[in-house]
Amino acid sequence: MQASPRHGFGGRLSYVWQTARPPRPAPTGDRMTTRGELKYEGKAKRVYATPHPGEYIVEYKDDATAFNGVKKAQIGGKGAINNAITAHLFPQLEQAGVPTHFIERLSDTEQRVRAVTIIPVEVIVRNVAAGSFSKRLGIEEGTVLARPVVEYCYKSDALGDPLINTDTAVALGWATPEELTRIRELALKVQAFLVPYFAARGVRLIDFKLEFGRLADGTVVLADEISPDTCRFWDAETNEKLDKDRFRRDLGGVEDAYSEMLARVTREL
Amino acid sequence: MQASPRHGFGGRLSYVWQTARPPRPAPTGDRMTTRGELKYEGKAKRVYATPHPGEYIVEYKDDATAFNGVKKAQIGGKGAINNAITAHLFPQLEQAGVPTHFIERLSDTEQRVRAVTIIPVEVIVRNVAAGSFSKRLGIEEGTVLARPVVEYCYKSDALGDPLINTDTAVALGWATPEELTRIRELALKVQAFLVPYFAARGVRLIDFKLEFGRLADGTVVLADEISPDTCRFWDAETNEKLDKDRFRRDLGGVEDAYSEMLARVTREL
Repeated sequence: MQASPRHGFGGRLSYVWQTARPPRPAPTGDRMTTRGELKYEGKAKRVYATPHPGEYIVEYKDDATAFNGVKKAQIGGKGAINNAITAHLFPQLEQAGVPTHFIERLSDTEQRVRAVTIIPVEVIVRNVAAGSFSKRLGIEEGTVLARPVVEYCYKSDALGDPLINTDTAVALGWATPEELTRIRELALKVQAFLVPYFAARGVRLIDFKLEFGRLADGTVVLADEISPDTCRFWDAETNEKLDKDRFRRDLGGVEDAYSEMLARVTREL
Repeated sequence: MQASPRHGFGGRLSYVWQTARPPRPAPTGDRMTTRGELKYEGKAKRVYATPHPGEYIVEYKDDATAFNGVKKAQIGGKGAINNAITAHLFPQLEQAGVPTHFIERLSDTEQRVRAVTIIPVEVIVRNVAAGSFSKRLGIEEGTVLARPVVEYCYKSDALGDPLINTDTAVALGWATPEELTRIRELALKVQAFLVPYFAARGVRLIDFKLEFGRLADGTVVLADEISPDTCRFWDAETNEKLDKDRFRRDLGGVEDAYSEMLARVTREL
């Protein structure tokens, strides 16, 4: 896809693209990079077992889907970019007191993570009305919420990730009350870290989706990814969308937006 | 509508119908029954001002709607039955520690209530999966929930009463955190009263919807109604539906079911 002249960031593509390449060769041949059984394949990632029972390898794909899989395409470089953005943010979240599944980036599109069982309750934190929230509640997209809203969805492709609440998650056995309390606490810690982090890089964090998992000992940790696939990012000056909505809404400049976000996330201040 | 031979309670219609008639003549001519301005007309009720600023008159209609008004009909006697059921239950709920808007039944289809501003957050308490909950989450209707689930919807005909959570209600200014805490507490008190009340009368309380209002001084009280329009009632032995689902799903025997529920609610034990 060509850089669109409508985008101020289009001209920076070649620079940005460089930063999306792996900064070091992927280790090969040692146990850490030996992919075992494919444990799970989602819309954007594959998860493999490793010889170490407490670790998985996550492979980020270029596949993009929207509207619960109805719209499908490839976004060139997306897997590498989302891998790099997540690998950049998760260690900082650990330092901010949010335990995560992340161990290290292994290659352009792979990362080594702690083995978790994903809790089937997706958490959405919203600062500004957009997307399904705007549509469902008749609130104009862009309306700043008086305070952050935490929503929960049941992670189910078959059902289209329906909205739930914590009572439902407990009653149906998807999580315990204690886990849900911890998940909310961690989600708000992620929010508290990310909002100023992105603001300092000229990005409004409109909303984001998190997934959590359980380690073998039951500890709840942040899993999945934080990327333009899972967040809404708007340029702080122009409100230009720098996320998957460019794909969902056929706005063009999808790869450029992802590359721009990688550049901003990894920018040293 | 004829009593359906499929219904064991059909033959009791004439008896039941008697009990739906007002037990005493409606007072006329005094200030309490003087309807003033029509304040609000909903799908099933009209609310009128009275000469007393702290009081309204609620008139129950026979109109029935389903699927957010797409399906419409009249159910003969529904207004009188729902008025009578609500008038029977609300004073008992008051005694159980749930303040309500109810003052007294005035006539077949009217009751005098305290004037409230309705909080636009509908509360649904679910004991057994049914209806939209079953459909949204792929849970077979009739599945007993491990514990009661309290759900919240934004009261908006235009939007189809969308599911929300308490964060959303606060962020959008529909209720305060303190009001929502109180509403949940009262909803669970209603649940604790109604479940054994109906069980003793051979009825499973599957789920029910409540609305709350604010008095002029801000006190939160139970408003609206409790009736086969707003609850799912299943016969304890046969699981036969004794509620508005007979209308929604074209099961026949709608009036009989409403009459049967009035008979059971008012049964002395």
